[in-house]
Amino acid sequence: MTHGHARTARLLIACPDARGIVAAVATFIRDHGGNLLDAEQHTDEEHGEFFMRAELDPGDGPLGRRSAFEDLWRPVAEAFGMTWRVRFGAEVKRMAILVGKQAHCLHDLLWRWQAGELPVEIPIIISNHETLAPVAANAGVSFVHLPIEPGPAGQAEQEAKLAAALDDANADFIVLARYMRILSDGLSRAWAERAINIHHSFLPAFAGGDPYRQAYDRGVKIIGATSHYVTPELDAGPIIAQETIHVSHRDTVADLKRRGRDLERLVLARAVRAHVEDRVLVSKNKTVVFGR
Amino acid sequence: MTHGHARTARLLIACPDARGIVAAVATFIRDHGGNLLDAEQHTDEEHGEFFMRAELDPGDGPLGRRSAFEDLWRPVAEAFGMTWRVRFGAEVKRMAILVGKQAHCLHDLLWRWQAGELPVEIPIIISNHETLAPVAANAGVSFVHLPIEPGPAGQAEQEAKLAAALDDANADFIVLARYMRILSDGLSRAWAERAINIHHSFLPAFAGGDPYRQAYDRGVKIIGATSHYVTPELDAGPIIAQETIHVSHRDTVADLKRRGRDLERLVLARAVRAHVEDRVLVSKNKTVVFGR
Amino acid sequence: MTHGHARTARLLIACPDARGIVAAVATFIRDHGGNLLDAEQHTDEEHGEFFMRAELDPGDGPLGRRSAFEDLWRPVAEAFGMTWRVRFGAEVKRMAILVGKQAHCLHDLLWRWQAGELPVEIPIIISNHETLAPVAANAGVSFVHLPIEPGPAGQAEQEAKLAAALDDANADFIVLARYMRILSDGLSRAWAERAINIHHSFLPAFAGGDPYRQAYDRGVKIIGATSHYVTPELDAGPIIAQETIHVSHRDTVADLKRRGRDLERLVLARAVRAHVEDRVLVSKNKTVVFGR
Amino acid sequence: MTHGHARTARLLIACPDARGIVAAVATFIRDHGGNLLDAEQHTDEEHGEFFMRAELDPGDGPLGRRSAFEDLWRPVAEAFGMTWRVRFGAEVKRMAILVGKQAHCLHDLLWRWQAGELPVEIPIIISNHETLAPVAANAGVSFVHLPIEPGPAGQAEQEAKLAAALDDANADFIVLARYMRILSDGLSRAWAERAINIHHSFLPAFAGGDPYRQAYDRGVKIIGATSHYVTPELDAGPIIAQETIHVSHRDTVADLKRRGRDLERLVLARAVRAHVEDRVLVSKNKTVVFGR
Repeated sequence: MTHGHARTARLLIACPDARGIVAAVATFIRDHGGNLLDAEQHTDEEHGEFFMRAELDPGDGPLGRRSAFEDLWRPVAEAFGMTWRVRFGAEVKRMAILVGKQAHCLHDLLWRWQAGELPVEIPIIISNHETLAPVAANAGVSFVHLPIEPGPAGQAEQEAKLAAALDDANADFIVLARYMRILSDGLSRAWAERAINIHHSFLPAFAGGDPYRQAYDRGVKIIGATSHYVTPELDAGPIIAQETIHVSHRDTVADLKRRGRDLERLVLARAVRAHVEDRVLVSKNKTVVFGR
Repeated sequence: MTHGHARTARLLIACPDARGIVAAVATFIRDHGGNLLDAEQHTDEEHGEFFMRAELDPGDGPLGRRSAFEDLWRPVAEAFGMTWRVRFGAEVKRMAILVGKQAHCLHDLLWRWQAGELPVEIPIIISNHETLAPVAANAGVSFVHLPIEPGPAGQAEQEAKLAAALDDANADFIVLARYMRILSDGLSRAWAERAINIHHSFLPAFAGGDPYRQAYDRGVKIIGATSHYVTPELDAGPIIAQETIHVSHRDTVADLKRRGRDLERLVLARAVRAHVEDRVLVSKNKTVVFGR
Repeated sequence: MTHGHARTARLLIACPDARGIVAAVATFIRDHGGNLLDAEQHTDEEHGEFFMRAELDPGDGPLGRRSAFEDLWRPVAEAFGMTWRVRFGAEVKRMAILVGKQAHCLHDLLWRWQAGELPVEIPIIISNHETLAPVAANAGVSFVHLPIEPGPAGQAEQEAKLAAALDDANADFIVLARYMRILSDGLSRAWAERAINIHHSFLPAFAGGDPYRQAYDRGVKIIGATSHYVTPELDAGPIIAQETIHVSHRDTVADLKRRGRDLERLVLARAVRAHVEDRVLVSKNKTVVFGR
Repeated sequence: MTHGHARTARLLIACPDARGIVAAVATFIRDHGGNLLDAEQHTDEEHGEFFMRAELDPGDGPLGRRSAFEDLWRPVAEAFGMTWRVRFGAEVKRMAILVGKQAHCLHDLLWRWQAGELPVEIPIIISNHETLAPVAANAGVSFVHLPIEPGPAGQAEQEAKLAAALDDANADFIVLARYMRILSDGLSRAWAERAINIHHSFLPAFAGGDPYRQAYDRGVKIIGATSHYVTPELDAGPIIAQETIHVSHRDTVADLKRRGRDLERLVLARAVRAHVEDRVLVSKNKTVVFGR
């Protein structure tokens, strides 16, 4: 699939299922001098919902300017009752990363970013610990230490600073790369569908704390990792990506943690990449993830 | 994805890449009273080729009749230089199965057919051995034994009978479910893109005879299976589906064969299903396999 | 690994971890004219438990006769506080199969049995429905229909007949091949570590009814199957084998069921095979599964 | 499995299959005050070869000193015609890394080393390019740039320096982490079973140059990575680990390279870890890889 050249735009659509939507989108693009490069649709027949992702070359005409595109597009969208968004390739997303003490997911994201796999800007890395400050420094990314003070007000105070730091950084979305703290309902809602978490189990099994210990005690023969959008309910948000591997009675809890780290890195990277490429739509607490 | 309701039609297209193809297809369907249910495209940027599969509800107008559909569609297709085919849901494909002595792939195809997973007719099962005649009888499918006589003319004579039997059965496509004989160049060409083979290795490794023994001797840590369209060059046709599993030094050749049988069944079924659902396009000895 | 030749015996051991257990076992076998063919051990360091599976050629001496073997072995076992069992290759296990209306797992077990993958006798297939009687007849296996009458006593009455039928059949273990009924606590306990169930989810997620619908509604990106020993607590017994595959938003509940059937067949077969080959030991509601 | 505590020793054995080997090993350990912690055996019945890996706590007696262990063990080994080696946990292996311009495998090895997953010393990183010098510097590892001069003598001169650098570094084994140069026959032989390469295909398919392009052109539906010991014949050495993932017609060569990098990292790390833990034995150009 075409991966976000600066010259392309992406149009994402959700609406009630109806006749002629693809024709309307395709002719809109053609008639205004654009070229449809790639299109994927999905119809949820159970709920009568239609989803579409179109990647287009806007051409030299009006589709290349946001305001003109939006003005031309709005009547079409209204005719079908669409929820929609458009993103231009030149608009690079700004990704804030929240971490705890564990380095593997952060290392992996930074490495992929440096290797050109994740076309984003990283304005800030935030942590409640200082442990990973050197990793951020090494990558040339600003690091902000926001410790959580003991006592009843500690978390709320830290969250206020966190919210401000994200605003200051002008972040488009957040990645919780093993942050190990639960975001408040308010922050979860403020960043709905824009905060990506990695949980170290195959959800919905083993939600909550210490999932590798839970997995060990239950004696499962697989372990997994799940990346999802954060919602107020813990580990219950829309799932973007999941993966499992086989384990055996020989694997201790330490082995599960070690082997799980490889899963976590892969699954988180896959989810972040899908988000960055505007391939994810959310409906009814589930995701449509186009492409691969 | 929508899986071939009797009321739907599928349009498959290949042509040089150009502007406006999706718009042309979508408006064609809409303007003649149809409804586009699902569409997938693929652009091979390296070769400038465009591929599309559209699944549509033809509606009550002309798109529901083959001759009318074709007459209306032909000018559009010619404008873009398309190779194309249309298939109506009511047209059930006729699948002939060729087997040797091994039962697992045949059993699996018949079971899936009986379970409703493969919406085809099975007019005939053909073998150069009598071993599997009872399996065919049990499923109520006609079995034809075409032994290969020793001597230089044996294979040619058998193939002539085979070709005639396939014609008599009015078969649309052939599945070689561990047939263990090499089709002649002539027969391979006659059934190009309509004869599906299962090879018990991850091609292109271990083509030819006894691939599990080859795999054992090489000491690989995975084994695989590959389903592909038959071409005159042995085990070199367009690949439709592949799968591997891990093996270890503990696995004997007998273990590889036993474990490989599970792979062969799955991979062959996946390929046959893709073919039956008109999800496969071939170009440059490679396949585009839409959906999943 | 050596797969149960008629000439071999298997010794399974569980005991508190201690020095010299392997030496004691190996010298016991050697000193009585046997030959240790394969041995696997596992130490659960967390609980200080030791597990071992030894496969041996008993030779022409006393180890080839059960009573002599047991008399010689008992003092060694007592010295280490072992729980143990020995099985001779000539003692073929008798497997009873319980089914409901769905054919895929039964078909698969029967096919593997006919192909020589499962060296067992199948004295009986039991169902609360008549649907699969023809499948049993076709395989030449006795089929017993034990319907469950409506009303409060229905299940108990049927279970009494079920227990009697299993006794009459002289069954060594039971396979619940999509039986779809919950065994009573009494029956679960009577067949502890000898009743193998297949559940169509990656446990502990989606226990209970209609797991594919549960999976669909949660929007998971994988589905799975789990084979486990039956215990009184539903879907909570010791897990023997698990497997998952990727799914997407395109998969309807019907797709999940269809694709899941392939998983269920593979996972159940893997668990049954491990049980038949005496490779499974149970401790603390978890399994040690030797070999692979 | 027990992962190389400083207090443990590992004994690796290969010999003709015979009666009583396990008993001999187990009693040897017990009778000299040691404790057998873990033992795995494998019998290659086709070639009549026996392999064993024993992990032991040497205790406070003679088994804890290399010379005493060897003196006591030698008669046992000679009685069975064994090839053998013993390694004490306190003897940390020294791993030299050879790289080209690509960073992903080097990054991954260094990260795992820093995270404690690879208990080795890394005395040196060697490259024919300067590209990755900063990565080495960042990890605090010595980097040696050994460019290959053009002309017929260039490679031989560089190899002489390479051999000397490896000697100076007192390396126990080499990892070719996408080194992209072919070692000479001489160097391959000098480091036989001690030089681990990662090849970016599922060998034996797509040996040699540009395997992702080869895979793309063949139209395979999986790609893979293979880690093996280097031998004079290119990409034909004993395979330690392999893995594959699914790809589709949508994946360009660039996609295959990107997705393949994740495979390469995992497979190389798995092979290096097996080597470091003394879990690999080589015979007849194949490996026995104990544990997992």
